[in-house]
Amino acid sequence: MEYIKNPMDIERGSFEIIGSEMAQHNFSEEELLIVKRTIHTTGDFDYQNIVHISEDAIESAKALLKRGITIYTDTNMALSGINKAALKKLGCEVKCYVAHEEVAKIAKERGITRSMAGVEKAVEEGVKFFVFGNAPTAIFKLLDLVREGKVNPKFVVGAPVGFVGAKESKEELLKYNIPNITIRGRKGGSNVAAAIVNAIMYMIVERD
Amino acid sequence: MEYIKNPMDIERGSFEIIGSEMAQHNFSEEELLIVKRTIHTTGDFDYQNIVHISEDAIESAKALLKRGITIYTDTNMALSGINKAALKKLGCEVKCYVAHEEVAKIAKERGITRSMAGVEKAVEEGVKFFVFGNAPTAIFKLLDLVREGKVNPKFVVGAPVGFVGAKESKEELLKYNIPNITIRGRKGGSNVAAAIVNAIMYMIVERD
Repeated sequence: MEYIKNPMDIERGSFEIIGSEMAQHNFSEEELLIVKRTIHTTGDFDYQNIVHISEDAIESAKALLKRGITIYTDTNMALSGINKAALKKLGCEVKCYVAHEEVAKIAKERGITRSMAGVEKAVEEGVKFFVFGNAPTAIFKLLDLVREGKVNPKFVVGAPVGFVGAKESKEELLKYNIPNITIRGRKGGSNVAAAIVNAIMYMIVERD
Repeated sequence: MEYIKNPMDIERGSFEIIGSEMAQHNFSEEELLIVKRTIHTTGDFDYQNIVHISEDAIESAKALLKRGITIYTDTNMALSGINKAALKKLGCEVKCYVAHEEVAKIAKERGITRSMAGVEKAVEEGVKFFVFGNAPTAIFKLLDLVREGKVNPKFVVGAPVGFVGAKESKEELLKYNIPNITIRGRKGGSNVAAAIVNAIMYMIVERD
C-alpha cells in the first residue's frame, strides 16, 4: 500500500489541514502554534475554544527553558510525551514523582494522593515549571503552597482532564498571578499537557 | 481548600457523571466500561459515537491477558499509560520499540518511520496484542505483514490520532478479520489507546 512515511511530511501536512479547518481567531503566531498542537494531539477542534494562554505565559516558559531548568509533571504519560531530543538541546530535564517510592509512602501515610505528595517533593526542590495533565488535587496542592509562600512558580500548564475537580482546579489556577496555559472546562490530559510543552520548545529549538 | 482527595472516589464519581450524561446506547456492560474510560481520559463525549468494538475483541483480549502475554505499543506514552500494577497481577508485560537504538538505525537506513521498524521487530518476536495510539504507518506496516502471512495478531487497538493517514489506517484495519477496538475518524491518541487496555485489564483484575 502507498502511504506517507516521512514523519515530518505527516506533521507538516497535519498542521496545514488544521489551519485550513480552524475557525476565525485572534491568536498570535506563537499562540497559534500551541493551539494547533493541542488539536494535532487530540483530533479535537474544540481546543481552539478552550486553550487559555496568559499574556506572559509563552515568554516566561521560553525564558525558563532557555535557562536549562527541570520540568516537573504530574504523570509519567506527560513525561513520556515531552520530546527528549528538544529537552536535551535546551539542557533541560523532566521529572515526575508520582510513582516515586518515598512519595507513595508519604501519600499512603497521610491519606493524600500521590500526585499531591509529588507536588510537595517538587516544591522542596524549588520547582518553577510545573505541568499538570491529570491531577486536580496536584493543582490544588500547588496553589495551597503558593498561598503559604512556599513556592513561586513561573510557568504552569493546567490541563487536568475529568469530571470531578478538574474544571474547578483550573478555574482556581486562573485566579492566581502565575503565567499559565490552561485548558478550560473538562477536557485536557497528559497528551495535551505534553503537546503544549513541545510547542513552546519547538519555538526555540529545531524539531528533529 | 476542600476537595476530594481519594483517587478511587474521584474515579467512581467521574464514571457516574459520564454515565448520567451519555446518550441512549446499545453497549453491553463490558463495552460500556471501555467507552466510558475513553470519555474519562479525554473529557470528550464524542467517543460514545466513534469507539468501534469488534464482536470478538473483548473476549480475545481477555484471553491473551490471562495468558500473561507481551503487549506491544507504538509509543512510549501508550506504554506509560498502561497500568503497571494491573499488568503485574496478570503476569503481562508491555514493550515499545519506537525509541530502541537498533530500530532507529534500521528506520534511518531504510527511510521508513521508527514506528514501522518497531512493528517489524515486534513481529519477529511473535506479537499477538498490538496497541496503536499514534502511528498510522505502523498500522499499515502491520497489515502488510498480515497479508504476507508473517503475523497473525489476535487483538489490536487501533487508535492513531491525526489528519494524515490516521483515519485511513483505521478504516483499513477494519477490513481485516482481526479482533479490534478502533476509534473511527481522526480522534484517538496514546492516552485513549492505553485507557482501552486498562478498561479490559480492570475487567479481570481489581483496580488498585
